[in-house]
Amino acid sequence: MIAGGHFGGPALRFGGAGSNVRGMRPQARDISNLKPPVTVIEWVGDARGGHLRLLDQTKLPARTAFVDCNDIQAVFDAIRRLVVRGAPAIGIATGYGMVLAAQSLEGVGDEGDCSAGLKAAAEYLIGSRPTAVNLEWAARRVLQCGQGACKSSTVGLCEVMLGEAQAIGVEDEALCLAIGRAAGPLIEKANGVLTHCNAGALATGGIGTATAGMYAAHATGHEFAVYCSETRPLLQGSRLTAWELMQAGIDATIITDSTAGQVMREGRVDMVITGADRIAANGDVANKIGTYGLAVLAGRHEIPFYVAGPYSTFDLGLPNGEAIPIEQRGGEEIVEGFGRRTAPTGAKVYSPAFDVTPGDLVTGIITDRGIIQPVNEDNVRKVIVD
Amino acid sequence: MIAGGHFGGPALRFGGAGSNVRGMRPQARDISNLKPPVTVIEWVGDARGGHLRLLDQTKLPARTAFVDCNDIQAVFDAIRRLVVRGAPAIGIATGYGMVLAAQSLEGVGDEGDCSAGLKAAAEYLIGSRPTAVNLEWAARRVLQCGQGACKSSTVGLCEVMLGEAQAIGVEDEALCLAIGRAAGPLIEKANGVLTHCNAGALATGGIGTATAGMYAAHATGHEFAVYCSETRPLLQGSRLTAWELMQAGIDATIITDSTAGQVMREGRVDMVITGADRIAANGDVANKIGTYGLAVLAGRHEIPFYVAGPYSTFDLGLPNGEAIPIEQRGGEEIVEGFGRRTAPTGAKVYSPAFDVTPGDLVTGIITDRGIIQPVNEDNVRKVIVD
Repeated sequence: MIAGGHFGGPALRFGGAGSNVRGMRPQARDISNLKPPVTVIEWVGDARGGHLRLLDQTKLPARTAFVDCNDIQAVFDAIRRLVVRGAPAIGIATGYGMVLAAQSLEGVGDEGDCSAGLKAAAEYLIGSRPTAVNLEWAARRVLQCGQGACKSSTVGLCEVMLGEAQAIGVEDEALCLAIGRAAGPLIEKANGVLTHCNAGALATGGIGTATAGMYAAHATGHEFAVYCSETRPLLQGSRLTAWELMQAGIDATIITDSTAGQVMREGRVDMVITGADRIAANGDVANKIGTYGLAVLAGRHEIPFYVAGPYSTFDLGLPNGEAIPIEQRGGEEIVEGFGRRTAPTGAKVYSPAFDVTPGDLVTGIITDRGIIQPVNEDNVRKVIVD
Repeated sequence: MIAGGHFGGPALRFGGAGSNVRGMRPQARDISNLKPPVTVIEWVGDARGGHLRLLDQTKLPARTAFVDCNDIQAVFDAIRRLVVRGAPAIGIATGYGMVLAAQSLEGVGDEGDCSAGLKAAAEYLIGSRPTAVNLEWAARRVLQCGQGACKSSTVGLCEVMLGEAQAIGVEDEALCLAIGRAAGPLIEKANGVLTHCNAGALATGGIGTATAGMYAAHATGHEFAVYCSETRPLLQGSRLTAWELMQAGIDATIITDSTAGQVMREGRVDMVITGADRIAANGDVANKIGTYGLAVLAGRHEIPFYVAGPYSTFDLGLPNGEAIPIEQRGGEEIVEGFGRRTAPTGAKVYSPAFDVTPGDLVTGIITDRGIIQPVNEDNVRKVIVD
């Protein structure tokens, strides 16, 4: 299940030995053989009888365990519980979830039943988490493909849809590499990088979004420090990002979320880069709670603040971030997050999972289609649509 | 040990029933009968044979337990482990720690031995935590008193020093009330208040510093919400501040530290108030890590950002915040804070316990001697020295 168990080894280093001399400006390279440290999402078996296997990210870094999903309820639950998380990854998982829905529909009923059943499944899965737009995007993409298949014959439905779901995963791997090619040169200019939550390999089908440039720069021999804000309440920064960067041999240091300002004041970071769960037409970015505060602090310290995400993270139907739905999570994640209650019984908790960073606080959005900079509606359209 | 076990009841409400009508501008009142919810620090027994008893704040809110300290090593350890914490409270505990040092010196040796022994004890205790200046201030105050007693006779040393240590505690209670009188009218104008860490009753010998105005405003019948940022890594906000505010019947809501920006964007708070561990001559404030980020966010949202602290928190020998020593804590508080490891084995952690907020980000510093506003060197001197 684990591709090599660790990053490192031949897959991570490129070119001749002499090309890693420090101080030399590294050359642009082919990074297409960079692979993620683990397989996060996998379809096991054939289309009609197979199932979805997810790395259980709630157990990392203590254990590498997997969750098998045999129906869409299990997929819904896995997304909701953050067994699989990260906007691109939950998109991919949703695609496979649609194949599980097809398994119960293939050869049963007529075209209308098939189409309606798939639509209901898509809507159900879309309801699992509201903020990441990739989820809806992937569900609709595999739905459309499946509904097309319903029209001709419900026989072979699963195969057709599995092909589409797998295509999303393969494509995401390529999108990550494209982001890595664009972001690598920026990381190569940095001595210290701060990232929030996990927009890494664990959040995607490839080498991550925010991390893609880190892996690319590391592969050229560039040395730099990454400060991983732990990301309360579920600690994706310390549990996941630090873990995957350490696997790759990248110098990772964990800080509490509140330490970001001090780290900036001390001159330890000269770049901030995060992922995104949904980006509006004007470049406003919804991402993990705390991202907005980091952008404000980076602005005060004149530190470039970048966001990385594939085209599928953009929701051009929304004019700005005000329209992005923000998921509210249960307070128990905050006050009982570690199996021990850390707040008074009956205490009120307010727990939005995301916040919105205005595009004007974002130095650039690094996409598979190029870098949007400065961030405004025109440039979003130029890079993503045109 | 617990004074009534809970806030509330007669001690918390004032005046006639009619005076609590909402919408009326509450009158200035005598709040001198406001009492803290628990006894945080207590001397048990007489001067020569007694000992220091501390509420074990590491066990709150799950348990109300106490730690008995019979020598200065135990006091050092209790301060270091945050059994007792908060700048004023560790000042008071240090004063009592000096009495424990005197117990082993009284009647033994000559004046020189006595004086040197006390000085060594003070220096030892001062080394327990470097940032809060009250600790050093209290140690030196009781040291000076003890050294004076050494000169006349080492008999009665403990009694003299216990008197001085108790005076620090009694005085701190009065300082908190004075801060409450100054801060109360500001809280009465707010619908939502955000505070960080615990600068409450648990951090002082009275009704707290940042919380003093909350208790005062609450006593007038003013209704308002308090957002308590949980304050990683040790969760003083959720474990302690939410607890003591709930005891008093004040509407407290816990948020992660990263949620502060979103709470401000949503218009939920119209005032931020924190405590301080050390304030330099120009008004730069060292306080719990994360305070600086809150001040930057408050500035962006044009929300008044107040700091509350007694005169003993000022270190006028330091021209500005750059000179304030910042304590570094062990990484295990972050990655094993709840008995379960939440980061990869071997992960690097960077954990400064405090940060420095420039005075120009602080709307006002609320002291027992009045409010310093705007915050600058002249006004600090006028309020604190003149």
